[in-house]
Order: sequence, then C-alpha cells, then structure tokens
Amino acid sequence: MRNFDENTITDAVLDRVGGAQDPRIKQVSEALVRHLHAFLREVRPTQAEWELGIGFLTRTGHMCDDKRQEFILLSDTLGASMLVDAINNSAGLGETDSTVLGPFYVEGPNVFENGADISNGMDGMPFYVSGTVANIEDRPLGGAVVDVWHADDHGYYDVQNFEEHGLAGRARLHTDAEGRFSFWTIRPASYPIPHDGPVGDMLKAQGRHPYRPAHVHFMIEAEGCQKLVTHVFAAGDEYLDSDAVFGVKDSIIQPFEEHAPGRAPDGSLRDAPFATLEYDFRLLPADRAAQAA
Amino acid sequence: MRNFDENTITDAVLDRVGGAQDPRIKQVSEALVRHLHAFLREVRPTQAEWELGIGFLTRTGHMCDDKRQEFILLSDTLGASMLVDAINNSAGLGETDSTVLGPFYVEGPNVFENGADISNGMDGMPFYVSGTVANIEDRPLGGAVVDVWHADDHGYYDVQNFEEHGLAGRARLHTDAEGRFSFWTIRPASYPIPHDGPVGDMLKAQGRHPYRPAHVHFMIEAEGCQKLVTHVFAAGDEYLDSDAVFGVKDSIIQPFEEHAPGRAPDGSLRDAPFATLEYDFRLLPADRAAQAA
Repeated sequence: MRNFDENTITDAVLDRVGGAQDPRIKQVSEALVRHLHAFLREVRPTQAEWELGIGFLTRTGHMCDDKRQEFILLSDTLGASMLVDAINNSAGLGETDSTVLGPFYVEGPNVFENGADISNGMDGMPFYVSGTVANIEDRPLGGAVVDVWHADDHGYYDVQNFEEHGLAGRARLHTDAEGRFSFWTIRPASYPIPHDGPVGDMLKAQGRHPYRPAHVHFMIEAEGCQKLVTHVFAAGDEYLDSDAVFGVKDSIIQPFEEHAPGRAPDGSLRDAPFATLEYDFRLLPADRAAQAA
Repeated sequence: MRNFDENTITDAVLDRVGGAQDPRIKQVSEALVRHLHAFLREVRPTQAEWELGIGFLTRTGHMCDDKRQEFILLSDTLGASMLVDAINNSAGLGETDSTVLGPFYVEGPNVFENGADISNGMDGMPFYVSGTVANIEDRPLGGAVVDVWHADDHGYYDVQNFEEHGLAGRARLHTDAEGRFSFWTIRPASYPIPHDGPVGDMLKAQGRHPYRPAHVHFMIEAEGCQKLVTHVFAAGDEYLDSDAVFGVKDSIIQPFEEHAPGRAPDGSLRDAPFATLEYDFRLLPADRAAQAA
C-alpha cells in the first residue's frame, strides 16, 4: 500500500487500524480516523495551519500538571464534556440531573463530620449547605459518600491558590441514617475558568467570555446506585445563560439565600449575615441505569 | 441557553463559537465542533473512556520537548499529516511528489559545501547522495536551499542520540549554477518511529508495527517556486508497503546502490564498499501552485 492521495488515504488508514484485537479499540480508532479526516477534508488546512494546530495541542499538554488540566478545559469549552455527560446520564427517571465534572476535582478529599466548617479560613459570607440523598423512590440513602468542592468568593479554587489556604472548600461527607448531610463554608462566586493558557486564547479568538455562574460541585455515591456528578448553581447569577462550559440546567439551580444575623438552620446563632443552600439529591438505582443505557 | 441534552448541545456550542471575528477561525471552530461531536455521538464513550482519552492527550503533550514531537507522530500515524500534505500538494504538473515532514526536522541546520561529509563520524556504509534541482520545465535552479536529514544505520536520528555525535546526518546545502548538489554521509536504515510513548501504545493496541522504510528527507526551497518537502526511499526496503506513517509513493523510491571499493561518482577513490543515491527534483513555480490550489 502506497501512493496515497486525498481520496485513498482514509481507507488505507482504516485498513491499518482495523487490525486492532480489541473490538472497542477497533471501533473507536476507525471512528476517530473517519471523523478526523472528514474534518481535515472540510477545512483543508494549509501546512502552516496544521502546524498551528499541532502547536496548540502541544501547549495544551504542557499546561497540564497536578493542579491544572487544560485538556479537560478544552473538552469542557467545546461542549464535549457535556455531550459525554448527556450520553451517559439521561435516563430521565426522576434522578437529579448531572453536569460536567470539571478540572478541579481532587481524589480522596479530607473527611468532615456533618455540620463542620470546611472553609479552612477562606474569607467570604458564611454559607450553610444542607440537603438529603435518596433514591428515585424517595428512600433515604444513609452512608452515602458526598464529595463537595467549590470556588472561593473571588472565584478561585484552593488548588489554584494553594499557598494561601491549602485545601479549602473541599470535603468528603457521609449522609446520616436519614440521608442528610450539611456543612458550613463560604459562598462561592461566579468566576472565569483559567484562561491564561491555550484554551483562554481559543475562547478569545472565538469571541467568548470564560465565565461560569457560581456553583457548588457534588459527587455522590451510594451503594447500589449510579454515581451522580453534578453542581448546584446560584439562582439569579448573571452567567446562567452563558456558562463557558454549557453545564447549566434549570433543575439544578437553587437560591443561595442571604439572611440577616440570627439563627441559622442548624440552630447556631450567627452575628453576621450568612447564606444558605438546600438541595435534595435523587440517585438512580444501578439496575435502572443499566436498563436505560 | 441552558438545559442542553445530547440533541441540543451541538447547536448551542456552534452558536457560541460562531461569534469569532476572524472568518477562518469561525469556519475551523464550527467544523471542529461538528466533527468532534459526531465522533462522540457515534462511539458514545463512557465517562471512564473519555477520561482515558483526556489522559492520552495529556501524556502525548507531556512527551513533547525540543527533541521529541509526539503530536506530530500522532498526526503522522493517523494519516492526518499525509492527508494535509495531499490537500496542499497535488497539482500533478510534473513536480516531485511530496510527503510528510515528520518530527525530526531541526530549524537552521549547519551549512555544508557540496561534496562535504555531513555524517559527523557516524558509523555505517559511506553513502554518496547527489542530484539536481530544476523547475518543472527542466530549467536548473541554482542557489536553491537543500535541507537534508536522515537516520543513522541503527535507525536513530541525531536528536534522539544527541550525546553520541551531536548534530549528524543533517545539513543545509545550496545548489550550484547547474542546480546540482551532493554530499557524503552514511546509509540510513529503516527504523521504528519512537514508540515508547502514547503513540507507541496506540500502534500496539491497533496491532500495527512502528517501522518506516529507509529514507533521506529533503526540504528544498528556490526563489519563485513552491517549497518541496519530501523523502527519497530506498528501493527494495521491506517496509515500503507498510510505512507506519503512510508516506511512500512510487515516484520517490530510488535504489540506494551498493558498490565495491573503487572510484566514486565524485572521482574520489574509496577503499571500502560504499552506496550511492541520485535523484533529480522538480519544483513547481509558485504561480502554478497558486492556480492549482
């Protein structure tokens, strides 16, 4: 096989990758080649443009380290993450809507008791977050693992600003027998995704802003249920309709309600204004998820 | 805009990137989103598979440095480089066929006189390479810049083995008034592309070998002509029909002829066996290239 031209190269590559032993690798490789070549045939890049593309991917890779994941940002801003999420989580059987994981999850967060303050001294309006975890038939799920993480009130995650507070606004909680969880933290702000790298350059070239509406991330796992990865967004945020990563759904918007000093939902007396968020999550039993797939 | 599902996310992203000021960036962004989403819709990756994909791209980026360009290897092995080459170089007006640049070109090679030895002490069979540069009407092109680079006789480029010889088997020459060039070096071997990284893992998973047939790279520029990027491959090489990067064309295969000790084409007397390659390159006038584009 030789002498490939614009018309014959694709079949030649398909023939070659078709030798994959693993049927899934064969399927994904073949689809990748077809769609990649179709993209190139459509845009007909000059050699210089293709080198720009190689350079963009290289800089994106070089930007990635243990605190920054530029390829996730790229996937997020191209809507690929939301599409993969929709492909995998759309049973529509009453479970809480999912959304993107984003690049700021850290494996193995510190475990806190319910009611604890997870802010680790970050400045901002005290924020009491509580809710329940149940299955879609409203059976409370005790012992569920609830991972939460959120930005500070300037819109930065702890890992972006690690010198200041170490890990902060990030915790693992476990629901009690009635499926309840709660914690104190500070109210997160809306924020731009990190945009000092190639993805920021791309957004700028595409005439897009890098902002996301304020939100708290949740990853919830309970025995026998499908893992839920979602956020709860602040009602009224100015970026709800232009989230840079296309993650907003009406069902996961909730007021981040402000209160004058006084008694908080956990019975404590607050001498300064505070905010509250309450949300009840519903998980899909794993067998129903398997049927829906 | 919110509540995106598998059916609505693509239009939402297209709408967003459609704000690009530059029409070419708008066109490429829109095509990228459509083809990327079509790929995802076809293969329907699980969340875990998509994370594998992100990890693959991240490792590919981390593998890139000033001596290694893993994204070019990825483009080469997926046939994307050959497709871009075919899109840009297919006038078919008698010009020498082009092929991929590959990842081993180094900007600004050292300049040598015609007839010089560019091997810098590499072991192997002495190899005399000569030829001419003309335009497609056979008018010799004097003063053309001829960049050459090739692997050693174990199949490694100087930049892969820099400690041993520094720059070697790599030169810039200029054609004389009759368009002639020539140099001594050592005969390169067929070789595997670097396959100790993610691209090597991909080839293995796809059941492919990483070998390329023996070749010498040429990049030739002459005033008023389209730049030519090509190789000349060794006739009879066992990998001509399975080049890992799809770069072989019959028109750029030539014997790497072996000779007993004796007089070489440049008149010198050789006391050991040597090999020769002769190739006459034909460049496309820039105005004809522009018409053909």
